[in-house]
Amino acid sequence: MGQVAAREADAGGKVTITEIARQAGVSVPTVSRVVNGRSDVAPQTRARVEDLLRRHGYRRRAASPGTRAALLDLVFNDLDSPWAVQIIRGVEEVAHAAGVGTVVSAIHGRSGDAREWMRNLRARASDGVILVTSALEPTLHEELRILGVPLVVVDPAGSPAQDAPTIGAANWSGGMAATEHLLSLGHRRIGLIAGPPRLLCSRARLDGYRAALEGAGIALDPSLVVPGDFRPESGFAACDALLGLPEPPTAVFAASDQMALGAIEALRRRGLRVPQDMSVVGFDDLPEVRWSAPPLTTVRQPLADMGKLAARTVLRLTRDEQPDSPRVELGTELVVRASTAPPPTAG
Amino acid sequence: MGQVAAREADAGGKVTITEIARQAGVSVPTVSRVVNGRSDVAPQTRARVEDLLRRHGYRRRAASPGTRAALLDLVFNDLDSPWAVQIIRGVEEVAHAAGVGTVVSAIHGRSGDAREWMRNLRARASDGVILVTSALEPTLHEELRILGVPLVVVDPAGSPAQDAPTIGAANWSGGMAATEHLLSLGHRRIGLIAGPPRLLCSRARLDGYRAALEGAGIALDPSLVVPGDFRPESGFAACDALLGLPEPPTAVFAASDQMALGAIEALRRRGLRVPQDMSVVGFDDLPEVRWSAPPLTTVRQPLADMGKLAARTVLRLTRDEQPDSPRVELGTELVVRASTAPPPTAG
Repeated sequence: MGQVAAREADAGGKVTITEIARQAGVSVPTVSRVVNGRSDVAPQTRARVEDLLRRHGYRRRAASPGTRAALLDLVFNDLDSPWAVQIIRGVEEVAHAAGVGTVVSAIHGRSGDAREWMRNLRARASDGVILVTSALEPTLHEELRILGVPLVVVDPAGSPAQDAPTIGAANWSGGMAATEHLLSLGHRRIGLIAGPPRLLCSRARLDGYRAALEGAGIALDPSLVVPGDFRPESGFAACDALLGLPEPPTAVFAASDQMALGAIEALRRRGLRVPQDMSVVGFDDLPEVRWSAPPLTTVRQPLADMGKLAARTVLRLTRDEQPDSPRVELGTELVVRASTAPPPTAG
Repeated sequence: MGQVAAREADAGGKVTITEIARQAGVSVPTVSRVVNGRSDVAPQTRARVEDLLRRHGYRRRAASPGTRAALLDLVFNDLDSPWAVQIIRGVEEVAHAAGVGTVVSAIHGRSGDAREWMRNLRARASDGVILVTSALEPTLHEELRILGVPLVVVDPAGSPAQDAPTIGAANWSGGMAATEHLLSLGHRRIGLIAGPPRLLCSRARLDGYRAALEGAGIALDPSLVVPGDFRPESGFAACDALLGLPEPPTAVFAASDQMALGAIEALRRRGLRVPQDMSVVGFDDLPEVRWSAPPLTTVRQPLADMGKLAARTVLRLTRDEQPDSPRVELGTELVVRASTAPPPTAG
């Protein structure tokens, strides 16, 4: 609906919207709105424009059902993390190739914003929704279900109790790989700056850390586990707390790259060097941590691939095809750079 | 168009799409597609579903003209920079509040992608376009003009010869402020890692650097100006080149934060400390450089505000209102952190 032929040929040649606008004495967007059937045009103006369109034999492209362009809604809690752009990149690539537009929204964990978004989603008749690390109220889930709009959840916040397919990363394996790397360097007291406990991915990374310690016969010391919120500020504070312990760790595994950067800054402020005085491992492998000082050893989470798979899955659902699996975890991978080394005492 | 009443009440109670789907023996998305007038449903299935919808008195919400939901297209060359998410954040905030969806696309500087995007834009009848640091071919500009779709350009790549309003940052003043800061600390040999010369913003930052040196009575030494491409790798290489000079600079102004991070890594690899051995200033103030090691002194570019203003401007144009000014530059601001200090010899 509402598509406009770029040009229109009559016996005498081509008449553009610009020409119609000129003759009607109105702007080009006004003519465009009349052609697109929008209501926000004064009745007299509309009549004048329609008359000119008719006189010039201007034809809009046939608005046959089924030619409505498809849209996906990609919904974040917040757009303030470099993390988000990686997901957007993956979703956009797949959607673009399928001729589908990617509508990006942030709902800020606020109920009002989520309801507003749902109203907009309905008004634009979006074909599918990808929800990232975000929880919708049950009533909104129900509304999507009733509307028949398929939903895919990336990095689900809580138990995937909803019937929507979910796509995540192998967080448990990643937490284990990060910790095993530090163990293999000779570290025995390894601090964990954990993510928010309400998030599934945080709990999986914590359990991976615990499993690696157990595998090495090391009892978990609860004082070495400090929670953060994935942001750099919380990594800074958590690292400071670990350094204040009677017996501080010799290495820290931060459950996000941003917290790892905060931890490195806490060390720098105390005049401690990474990795000589303390090793630091992150989680995510954001493009910028290749350029942190020093370049960060981290667990690569395939964020763009998660976005791509989410887009492919939701497009399948709009065609009534089943996803390959209702719950997919993409592999994580340890990337060793310059922020890890043997502990100072093991030298 | 294509909006679906969430529930529908008949004498006996409520019938949902789910119930219709169950009775028709088809999936919920199929019923949704029939309700939304899509063509991709087998004729027999469509007939069965329509029959059930009628029998249950299912009413779709009236699809009156003018209720078509508005969309903005936000187009980047690439989505691989943390820079992009700041712009998206600003545009989304304004668009969301206006009930307008933000469709994000990347055209990768490829002509084929741009044409594909234009086809999709037409198919979804988008109401306006925000183009970020990206050049469209003249034929696509012409196509937008003919379609009557207003265009706003953020951070224009070349001369704003097009009649579209542009929104940028005060790049010249920012370049001057960065250089003056280093001069005020006592630096006399200041290197510049410049942006790509084809971009207006790069040329303005370079000219600001030049103006500050002139103001201090220092002749520009062309060997101290090394071009980069805004990415960290190029900052690394450029800083290495500056350090290889017979008389290296004591400070470096990098025309992007990412190049500044690359420069800091080049210094770290040579065992040089920032700021004791060399001062570094960036440009952008991406959120993550508050957490670089050391935290980066930089020129704040109000990326989210630029996105907000671009969205407000394009929404004005869709309502036939004029923008306040066809060319707006938002102010930049020097943010002093820990990567700058007096030169070692001035100690």
